[in-house]
Amino acid sequence: MQAALLYHQPESEYAYLYAEDCLHLRLRVGKGQVAQVKVYYQEVFKTLEGTDYYSQTMTLWEQDRDFDYYQVAIANPPKRFEYYFVIEDLAGQTYLYNEVDLYPLAGPPSQADLRANKDGFKLPYLHWSDHYQAPDWAKDTVWYQIFPDRFKRSGKIPNRHHLQDWERDSRPDHDAFYGGDLKGIIQQLDYLQDLGITGLYLCPIFDSSSNHKYNTHDYFKIDPDFGTKEDLKELVTQAHQRGIKVILDAVFNHIGSQAPIWQDVIAKGKKSDYYDWFHINQLPVDKLRRLDDETMNYETFAFVPAMPKWKTTQPQARDYLLKVTQYWIQECDIDGWRLDVANEIDHGFWRAFHQACLALKPDFYIVGEVWHRSQPWLQGDQFHAVMNYPLQEIIEGLFMGLESNRSQWLDQLGRLRMTYRQSCSEAQFNLLDSHDTMRLFNKCGQNLALMQASLAFLFLQVGSPCIYYGTEIAMAGGDDPDCRRPMPWDFTDSDRQMQAFIQALISLRHSYNSLINQGHHHESLTSKGSLKLEIDQGPERLLAYFNLRDEALSLEEQSQSEPVFCQGYQAGTLTSYGFVVFAELNQ
Amino acid sequence: MQAALLYHQPESEYAYLYAEDCLHLRLRVGKGQVAQVKVYYQEVFKTLEGTDYYSQTMTLWEQDRDFDYYQVAIANPPKRFEYYFVIEDLAGQTYLYNEVDLYPLAGPPSQADLRANKDGFKLPYLHWSDHYQAPDWAKDTVWYQIFPDRFKRSGKIPNRHHLQDWERDSRPDHDAFYGGDLKGIIQQLDYLQDLGITGLYLCPIFDSSSNHKYNTHDYFKIDPDFGTKEDLKELVTQAHQRGIKVILDAVFNHIGSQAPIWQDVIAKGKKSDYYDWFHINQLPVDKLRRLDDETMNYETFAFVPAMPKWKTTQPQARDYLLKVTQYWIQECDIDGWRLDVANEIDHGFWRAFHQACLALKPDFYIVGEVWHRSQPWLQGDQFHAVMNYPLQEIIEGLFMGLESNRSQWLDQLGRLRMTYRQSCSEAQFNLLDSHDTMRLFNKCGQNLALMQASLAFLFLQVGSPCIYYGTEIAMAGGDDPDCRRPMPWDFTDSDRQMQAFIQALISLRHSYNSLINQGHHHESLTSKGSLKLEIDQGPERLLAYFNLRDEALSLEEQSQSEPVFCQGYQAGTLTSYGFVVFAELNQ
Repeated sequence: MQAALLYHQPESEYAYLYAEDCLHLRLRVGKGQVAQVKVYYQEVFKTLEGTDYYSQTMTLWEQDRDFDYYQVAIANPPKRFEYYFVIEDLAGQTYLYNEVDLYPLAGPPSQADLRANKDGFKLPYLHWSDHYQAPDWAKDTVWYQIFPDRFKRSGKIPNRHHLQDWERDSRPDHDAFYGGDLKGIIQQLDYLQDLGITGLYLCPIFDSSSNHKYNTHDYFKIDPDFGTKEDLKELVTQAHQRGIKVILDAVFNHIGSQAPIWQDVIAKGKKSDYYDWFHINQLPVDKLRRLDDETMNYETFAFVPAMPKWKTTQPQARDYLLKVTQYWIQECDIDGWRLDVANEIDHGFWRAFHQACLALKPDFYIVGEVWHRSQPWLQGDQFHAVMNYPLQEIIEGLFMGLESNRSQWLDQLGRLRMTYRQSCSEAQFNLLDSHDTMRLFNKCGQNLALMQASLAFLFLQVGSPCIYYGTEIAMAGGDDPDCRRPMPWDFTDSDRQMQAFIQALISLRHSYNSLINQGHHHESLTSKGSLKLEIDQGPERLLAYFNLRDEALSLEEQSQSEPVFCQGYQAGTLTSYGFVVFAELNQ
Repeated sequence: MQAALLYHQPESEYAYLYAEDCLHLRLRVGKGQVAQVKVYYQEVFKTLEGTDYYSQTMTLWEQDRDFDYYQVAIANPPKRFEYYFVIEDLAGQTYLYNEVDLYPLAGPPSQADLRANKDGFKLPYLHWSDHYQAPDWAKDTVWYQIFPDRFKRSGKIPNRHHLQDWERDSRPDHDAFYGGDLKGIIQQLDYLQDLGITGLYLCPIFDSSSNHKYNTHDYFKIDPDFGTKEDLKELVTQAHQRGIKVILDAVFNHIGSQAPIWQDVIAKGKKSDYYDWFHINQLPVDKLRRLDDETMNYETFAFVPAMPKWKTTQPQARDYLLKVTQYWIQECDIDGWRLDVANEIDHGFWRAFHQACLALKPDFYIVGEVWHRSQPWLQGDQFHAVMNYPLQEIIEGLFMGLESNRSQWLDQLGRLRMTYRQSCSEAQFNLLDSHDTMRLFNKCGQNLALMQASLAFLFLQVGSPCIYYGTEIAMAGGDDPDCRRPMPWDFTDSDRQMQAFIQALISLRHSYNSLINQGHHHESLTSKGSLKLEIDQGPERLLAYFNLRDEALSLEEQSQSEPVFCQGYQAGTLTSYGFVVFAELNQ
């Protein structure tokens, strides 16, 4: 057994409270090198009194190309938690693994061996408040993302802009306005409820000159294009009555350059009260200049002069943004914030933000826009979730990529589950497209069966799935701005068929949510080119097959059960990109 | 090359700002598997504009049994930092390593290759405030730990207890009082300054019934055994005048059971204002009962009824302790807190504590009592340092352990340096004994040469060394309470010889502090049983040999320089446990 392949880290995704009374431990070992792993544990001071260590056998929970990952759940763990891993390799050799190294043993350790060892791993005192906790509802939500200018025009808002005609397949310009608004969303809440949606994520709705509103002018005002604070209150109230949560987009990385605050900086320079709220390298600040290869006269989002970057480390600027944060919770009872460009804001700000939100609403949900691996934000003190773009990439790789790469993508999928605490994976914001990407239908080459299969796979993954408005009618769209077409409400037959599919898929998710989130997932590729997915928890079991080829496929194995959901499945045969899901009982 | 042995993690001890304008990156690879490692990096948005990536070659910085650790310092890094590692293995094969995986390349990557890759490691925006920062002075301090009841009796404090006679080699009982006090410490500040001491750590001095004062009765009052608040002010002022910093012991894990706050809980039970400030499982709370195998009627430190555990997650309790925290900074200008049983208090408390201290004194120093690996507290938001017991264990292993284990201890030493950011290692509180351990002289079997050699080795390590009072006269003492004997002030000739040794050792440390802290360390074992230590930084170089055997040793290699410090060294020969330190210039 290769000691160098072992990995464990206390107080990380390898050792955490999954619930207040349940501790999870994980151990990574070299693939196929280990026959059995046990964990021995005890209250640290009891060992000094001579009390015996408990032991539990760990389960092989994930595998990838290089590693096996073992996991165990320990109920009611002692508060001062000291532990050792005892590993038996394939040759029958036993080892003790502590925080210093790996040591060969003559056999299973005696209690005296364990007591004599001083270098156990330690969770010195289990404070529940230090551990990652997501609101329960967030693990049980099916999200729907709305780009407000393009979802529904109520016709009750006075026009401020020239509006484009609201036509199916209208291709938006970057600067086009279509006139969607909050009242329009309210009008469609029954529609969303009927689909099974239980959470709405709205792209920015605060005062701004653009159609996307990511350049905020006034954080305390609903954009007049969209309505009023009263409209938002009404939207949240009506949504809550339908069991739907509402989260808004917090754009705190940068302001809009037309904002009075920024205009004050331009007008007064260093004499402005707001001068220190931004990153200003050189006066004057009226126009973005590049001073040298590294420096501009003020910092922005990317290189966008219209988006000056907030100095969120500055105490007054921070307090201002935290007031915004709390204002909309207090005024309109929103349920969460989605954080734009969350990874470029300081962690100190996000810790204060987390406290400000949770103080007002203990089951508040915080989801950051971070496209890469996100451990630094998901330790419990900052976000509950990120927009799970790495999962998106994996599913695209599996369903739309080369067949020869599929086993690598499955490796990545297992590894991603091990990247975060299980409690955290369950609350992730999973998505296959958004206002920032090409639409899923286009990613699938406008192959509806492929789109449906990849959505079904998404809905069978740990974490809360989100569908981008229009996905339920297989709306087409390329990269931004084409992915932001107006939602047509004159549904065709094929729209209605896709809606029925989405409705059934959401219903499946709601029926099996606990099993999908908490169960043990195992994916494999069959010789005939299908992807098999098994999810087990106690007696419950879901079994799914996806035909990943552009030709019909007979399943090698047959389930004794009737399918609970399928597309293109009949009598053991899957059509191109067809799939089938069975619910079974484990023996 | 084995991909599974690679390790890198953004925003950790593998990627951090060493200074505001200097980024450190580290990469771990399999030992001896790699010929060269380069890092390619750029501002993330500039790569979209077509700007070329920079590259820098990394240095092989540490090695242990399993791994090679590469490190590089990048001056003035772009704020939005994207990076890739490019690794050439021994067979000449080149690989690109990103946050997802390792990929073979046909040769060094082209700029187009790099730009096409979307999965670079990312430090999304370098906010200096998010990064670990220790006060500069703490990296340049030689500490002296005082157990106040045993250091010096001024004779100016009215007795409250029966005092033991202050005699050399008096063996203290657990409950004995000797009458040391703050005025006594003030009287000896010239003595400490003369030794070269630049920092004092005082064990607890607040109102308490015991000699050790770890069961606090009143956190806002100096214990009358030791003096008054005025005495502490005077002590700090006088110390500062001598260039000596002063840190106190914060005992916030538990209170003393005689404290009025706790007595109120006993008297009033749930009606006490303080009931929620503690962990009470069952009434009445007047006596510690074990309710079952897991639960007692109130939580304590270990199983000590006289030390009820604070509920530091409770807002009022937290605020009370933070008031204590700030009170002694504001009233007496102390320079730091040492935190008792720091690992059993919640991280949320320590984050608030860090902010409360630094808000008052930006160069404040926080050092926690954590005996095990301490990454969770040393990320920048909580402590600056821990009491470095793992280093103590390594030095004991090297100098007092089996010869056959020495290379393993050197492995541990290198691995320990890689466990924390370099900036963090430089500020660690290094020690070979304390009030909680057997004294160093006894650990060395009362072999003075061995004691001196291990101290010299400690002083040549990264981090700030601390000597426990009495070490400068090689005071004897076994485990607690024997390690707390009164300091004799009637110095003998042998006392004076050891003092001269300590004085010279401290002087050596002050002369070469930057080199020792910032230089590249390499230790090796020579065939004849000596330990060789090389420390290099630019043209500067320290070279030391330690004879680890109980017999004389001729050095294989000779330095061209004269020794800057030695013990038992003459003409290329080291006596038993002798050592020699040379300062050289690199070519």
